[in-house]
Amino acid sequence: MTTAAPFATSHCPIARSLAVLGEKWTLLVVREALWGRTRFAEFRANLGIAPDVLADRLQTLVDGGILQRRAYREEGQREREEYVLTDAGRDLLPALAALGDWGIQHRPSPSRGSSAYVEITTGRPVQLAFVNESGRRLALDEVAAVPA
Amino acid sequence: MTTAAPFATSHCPIARSLAVLGEKWTLLVVREALWGRTRFAEFRANLGIAPDVLADRLQTLVDGGILQRRAYREEGQREREEYVLTDAGRDLLPALAALGDWGIQHRPSPSRGSSAYVEITTGRPVQLAFVNESGRRLALDEVAAVPA
Repeated sequence: MTTAAPFATSHCPIARSLAVLGEKWTLLVVREALWGRTRFAEFRANLGIAPDVLADRLQTLVDGGILQRRAYREEGQREREEYVLTDAGRDLLPALAALGDWGIQHRPSPSRGSSAYVEITTGRPVQLAFVNESGRRLALDEVAAVPA
Repeated sequence: MTTAAPFATSHCPIARSLAVLGEKWTLLVVREALWGRTRFAEFRANLGIAPDVLADRLQTLVDGGILQRRAYREEGQREREEYVLTDAGRDLLPALAALGDWGIQHRPSPSRGSSAYVEITTGRPVQLAFVNESGRRLALDEVAAVPA
């Protein structure tokens, strides 16, 4: 990954995030982990990803502090490793929701395969939005990005 | 890009978004465009990107309906093309803000190079957050992702 080093030390925090998240599959592995999946075989089956690519992406995510390895042993089997999200990994929830929202709106699909984001205590859907200092939810055309 | 086709037709809207946005540099070109930059030379100088890679990413973004080409001519020069965001491109604001927030928090840097997101009418900073149906802003640990 020839561009990883410049991205990792960029002035831009978006670039620094992409240094670890910018490879294909990486964010989809995180999506699976946010859904509670932890095991290599689950990731592989759900994503339809080649095992060598999956192993590479899991290592990237462990090295990047997004997943951590944890040993487990099922009855009568040898010890294996599973992958669980760190706090940094869980903090990717808004990034995945934002990319998913964009895909739903601008890459519509007849299939109903999207992730839902819910308030844990109520199970009711929540939405990602820009909020101003008064706590008012803003429409996208009320917001601008400016270089800091 | 061997994985583009499966991503583009995935059941998962995150994957469909990444079909066009998942290559290195693409989202950083969008960041520049959100900051109001439109010209090849500006993108190239600000990003430090190789011209052939930039040309490829601009084409991807035009093909993906995120940028559109527009002709312009400066006094005494030949006509050239610049690149402006479509509505779909502008709708990437939350995805960039989310990735930037994660980078600021989990890939801190001594440099102050981040983008700010502001309410246009006031110039005051805004924040990206999950909001429930009552309009209450939620903490991240109040939200879960579940397969739909």
